[in-house]
Amino acid sequence: MATATVNPDLARARAQATFDPLKLTYFIYDGADKTKRKRFLQNIAIKESQEQGFRRTAELTREEQYDEALRKTTYALRRIAELGLKDSTDLYFFKEPLFASDSSPFGLHESMFLPTIQKQGTEEQTKKWIPLAKRFQVLGTYAQTELGHGTFLRGLETTATYDVKSKEFIINSPTVTSSKFWPGGLGKTANHCVVMAKLNVGGRDCGMQSFIVQIRDVETHQPLPGVTVGDIGQKFGYGAMDNGFLTLNNVRIPRENMLMRYSQVLEDGTFVSPKNDKLLYGSMTLIRAQIVGGCARALSKAVTIATRYSAVRRQSEINPGAGEVQVLDFQTQQHRLFVQIATAYALSMAGRASIAAYTRVSAQIESGALEELPILHALSAALKAFSSWEMAFGIEQCRLACGGHGYIQASGLPKIYTHEVPACTYEGENTVLCLQTARFLMKCQEAANNGQQLPSFVSYLKNPKNGKSQLSQNIRLEQLIEAYEHRAGRMIAEASLRIKTQLDKGMKPAEAWNSSTQMLVEAVVAFTHAFVVRAFIEKVLTSNLEPSLYTVLSQLCELYALYGITKYSGQFTKGGYLNDQQLEIVEGRIYDLLAALKPNAIALVDAFDFPDLVLDSDIGRYDGNVYEALMEYAKRSKLNSTEVHEGFYKYQKPFVDSMKASVQSRL
Amino acid sequence: MATATVNPDLARARAQATFDPLKLTYFIYDGADKTKRKRFLQNIAIKESQEQGFRRTAELTREEQYDEALRKTTYALRRIAELGLKDSTDLYFFKEPLFASDSSPFGLHESMFLPTIQKQGTEEQTKKWIPLAKRFQVLGTYAQTELGHGTFLRGLETTATYDVKSKEFIINSPTVTSSKFWPGGLGKTANHCVVMAKLNVGGRDCGMQSFIVQIRDVETHQPLPGVTVGDIGQKFGYGAMDNGFLTLNNVRIPRENMLMRYSQVLEDGTFVSPKNDKLLYGSMTLIRAQIVGGCARALSKAVTIATRYSAVRRQSEINPGAGEVQVLDFQTQQHRLFVQIATAYALSMAGRASIAAYTRVSAQIESGALEELPILHALSAALKAFSSWEMAFGIEQCRLACGGHGYIQASGLPKIYTHEVPACTYEGENTVLCLQTARFLMKCQEAANNGQQLPSFVSYLKNPKNGKSQLSQNIRLEQLIEAYEHRAGRMIAEASLRIKTQLDKGMKPAEAWNSSTQMLVEAVVAFTHAFVVRAFIEKVLTSNLEPSLYTVLSQLCELYALYGITKYSGQFTKGGYLNDQQLEIVEGRIYDLLAALKPNAIALVDAFDFPDLVLDSDIGRYDGNVYEALMEYAKRSKLNSTEVHEGFYKYQKPFVDSMKASVQSRL
Repeated sequence: MATATVNPDLARARAQATFDPLKLTYFIYDGADKTKRKRFLQNIAIKESQEQGFRRTAELTREEQYDEALRKTTYALRRIAELGLKDSTDLYFFKEPLFASDSSPFGLHESMFLPTIQKQGTEEQTKKWIPLAKRFQVLGTYAQTELGHGTFLRGLETTATYDVKSKEFIINSPTVTSSKFWPGGLGKTANHCVVMAKLNVGGRDCGMQSFIVQIRDVETHQPLPGVTVGDIGQKFGYGAMDNGFLTLNNVRIPRENMLMRYSQVLEDGTFVSPKNDKLLYGSMTLIRAQIVGGCARALSKAVTIATRYSAVRRQSEINPGAGEVQVLDFQTQQHRLFVQIATAYALSMAGRASIAAYTRVSAQIESGALEELPILHALSAALKAFSSWEMAFGIEQCRLACGGHGYIQASGLPKIYTHEVPACTYEGENTVLCLQTARFLMKCQEAANNGQQLPSFVSYLKNPKNGKSQLSQNIRLEQLIEAYEHRAGRMIAEASLRIKTQLDKGMKPAEAWNSSTQMLVEAVVAFTHAFVVRAFIEKVLTSNLEPSLYTVLSQLCELYALYGITKYSGQFTKGGYLNDQQLEIVEGRIYDLLAALKPNAIALVDAFDFPDLVLDSDIGRYDGNVYEALMEYAKRSKLNSTEVHEGFYKYQKPFVDSMKASVQSRL
Repeated sequence: MATATVNPDLARARAQATFDPLKLTYFIYDGADKTKRKRFLQNIAIKESQEQGFRRTAELTREEQYDEALRKTTYALRRIAELGLKDSTDLYFFKEPLFASDSSPFGLHESMFLPTIQKQGTEEQTKKWIPLAKRFQVLGTYAQTELGHGTFLRGLETTATYDVKSKEFIINSPTVTSSKFWPGGLGKTANHCVVMAKLNVGGRDCGMQSFIVQIRDVETHQPLPGVTVGDIGQKFGYGAMDNGFLTLNNVRIPRENMLMRYSQVLEDGTFVSPKNDKLLYGSMTLIRAQIVGGCARALSKAVTIATRYSAVRRQSEINPGAGEVQVLDFQTQQHRLFVQIATAYALSMAGRASIAAYTRVSAQIESGALEELPILHALSAALKAFSSWEMAFGIEQCRLACGGHGYIQASGLPKIYTHEVPACTYEGENTVLCLQTARFLMKCQEAANNGQQLPSFVSYLKNPKNGKSQLSQNIRLEQLIEAYEHRAGRMIAEASLRIKTQLDKGMKPAEAWNSSTQMLVEAVVAFTHAFVVRAFIEKVLTSNLEPSLYTVLSQLCELYALYGITKYSGQFTKGGYLNDQQLEIVEGRIYDLLAALKPNAIALVDAFDFPDLVLDSDIGRYDGNVYEALMEYAKRSKLNSTEVHEGFYKYQKPFVDSMKASVQSRL
């Protein structure tokens, strides 16, 4: 990153830092070696991307985006093979500059098709399919959601009927609503699919099972008989992805194409139930844990762009007549952005904590201990929901903080938002996920009421609800954890009480539950918020940071936690836990923290170490040369390919002439 | 709207209403006659739109959107002339189905170019330009913002230097950052511009003035010498609009092209200052008041789509095994949507109240009384900010409430969001506007402290801050107004105190102000919220509604106000105004209201009376035939124009073949 021509305002803001951002970068990427490895791989990708002349999404039509994405994907995969990259972190960082907040039509092949076969296939099946898939001789996707059906698995309509004579399954879409709809890569790219379908053996409903269905000829790429498949059209972003629809008209597949690691259909039509299908949750849990980190990274990008731009942009005066100041000088702008910087760091630490929990529990599962699986599932579901909501809101805050230029695609911010906000919906709709976690928390509350042992991270459910915070002028981080756990404990208890009250009124359990769900979702948010606050604070307290880093990171911890207290203040003051004076201390401290963090704002976002190509933003550039870049972007607009647009001749001139004529005829 | 083939779930939900939606429609549109007129005009537009075969934005590239918008605009304007439509309400409703949440490249000509000349031009100037503009013989836009400068007028860099010899102004863009950037219609469409530039007469800075600058030849449409103009490229939505850039290289215009109703430059170079430039605020105030109503209407559209879809969509079970239910049955979904229905109605009433205030004050101004102008300015600025924030958040809530299908362009929701969220930024960035209102409120607070008289809608600033609410199980609407005004009064007083405390610490006034701005913005939000709550409640209480309408509208009032109390609960409990028990009453009442409003949900959105073409949504259709429409949309995707996409031959097949070869070569 050249510094010779850096915008002077940005350079000055950067120079104010009280710590070395490189050291924070090492902290973020787990040390100097891993940081260097990341940079090494990203630099290759950046150099080659420039050599190849890959085009920016911001300048392409949706059709061109798909075309360019295929070009980039095949290039990247070829290079990955040549470079011999295998480690998932290596792959992530190598691909990041090539697919900056953008999708690949091969994405589901790698993230869903392959892992599903690996997890749900028998040894024989994985032996057959995995090498084919790894060499891209079959290209797959994962087809679960249907036009009329989503999150609720048992609602799917696609059927798989076993024909014992031919030893085949007949896969069928009996209705319009049963067409598979939305899977990425399905529209134009994939030639195979893992299809979720309702298994019918000899007239008996054997539940949802997974089947490998070939949909296109591997050589000609033409759809096979009985298969109707295509792209679903333009979306909110995601132009590079061919999300597709798929209608199967009694398509026959061999018996061997049902993934049979758990459930099985024997040749003679005997259905064998799985011994333990809880293991199926495993991969979903990992994906959700990964989404948390992804949300942190997406928000980090957005806030890097907005913070740098706020140092470059001058707008309005603070002291009348003294000239326009950097918008970063305004307290309101600091509040907007620094809260998001803090949130990005907080979610990143929570993401690490949840991956760590996954790894720990996975090891237990391997040795046969499944006790912690429900806890892990509950935690990862709630964290995915919480972090995607926070991220989506945060990205838009960053975009709105950039004024008009936040609306131009060249800012990168619209693309980041449209690429990331679907995390609120995919891999389990957020509200639905929160309510799954709520089921778990209600069980924990019951266990607490009965004096039973609790999982460590909800042990506070046993605490008394009438406590008072000791928080005073000299705020300690532990007091903030206490405050969040008090709030969560109280809200979980209240939701549990609400259900009980509704039951006492004579409601059926399902209705008592439904009439408490809004309260439950809010309790789950409080529970997750407490987890995130604890994860962030513990990470900072236990990482043996050098003083300059400890100071700024503990300020971010504080800001994150204090901001949440002001946002949900009534939930902290209830029962007198915090009083009005303490709330005023909290507010006052936030304003002090904004001022204290200001010299470090640029360094805090620089430390994320995003190369310009990853941000893909004309206003978030490391060198701050924003306006020249925007003007170049403008000039390349396709509408400028002719000086006079053909619409002028087709519509505008004839109209103006006719108006003139009509005036003259009236004269 | 045919009902024969309505989706049965939607039909059943619709039939549950306890009131006649047509009567509510009459209330919304000010009576049966005006409703009929609206429908009459919209039906013409719908019929002709179908005859013309205008294409959906959701299916077009950005370039096609611009082209189609020109076609639609010229068609619409021709028809408006033929039909002799002149009344602004008539024009609004006739155009609404043709430009459903979409823009017209002629939009700024009508909304800014013409009105600016009308307001700021001399009699002679309006006589010359208005007829030309009305007959489209000149086509204009309004160019204020520059690449490096926005809200802060004095920061603009474009210069207008008077040349006394030639009696011309020389308009110049001295830097990259001084290029005009963003004006709608500037890129490819307009041939004239009102340009804001810094006037220099004989070396003296005479402030910002407005100039009419011709930028393209009226016949050939080629840019004139010294003019560099073009489109700025792809944005977050707004594809139909050619937002543009404009660089002026010492372009000369006659002296007569400066708009001279207020400031003047005489032939000899004498600069004459305006007598009263407050009047300039008038048109900005009206536009902001209109934005409030626009925000209400946009949110109404989004919530109509999401509510209807929630009656059609079945997903998950409430009673296990009893089958999937309409998602509208879930309390969480009701909470999400009904709060937005209530918000849409609340903003609509606030919009009316602010237009009424504008009309009243305008009449005073005509008779020379300018006292209320600052009040009106403060109110309209804050209302614009508040309502655009509420709307933007609300539209995304509606979109997210639609699960996966909320992401497809065919749902209409992405387009509504991207078309409307710019209201947070244009016509004054929201935070900046809030702080303008804060200045006014701080003056009011000082007046209150000094026992002076206050404008009626902040008279509560005189109230004691230690009151307690009398709110109990039987909530009265007046108690809700009281609660909101108490909260606003307290927060305004606290912000004022904060400034005083900072000054006492020795801060300079400008810094004391800046370090209080976050608190001030929150106080302004509370002030505006109180205004909206009062406007909504007063409208419902004073409209002499028949009982069935009164019941449901007062429930919406209650829900709107109670939801705000839970959202900002700590601001209502501070100082003990509301206690924990009262807060629990509020929460419980919200859950009861959700259940009470549920049978009326569809009728409440039907009453907005949006024709399908205005919603432009496959999932928000009146007939609920959602899935068939989505599948048709999918099939029309441009990527489906060939069965095998050319990218397969260009990239995918060569890649797969090379991977096969490389494996074989390694064998």
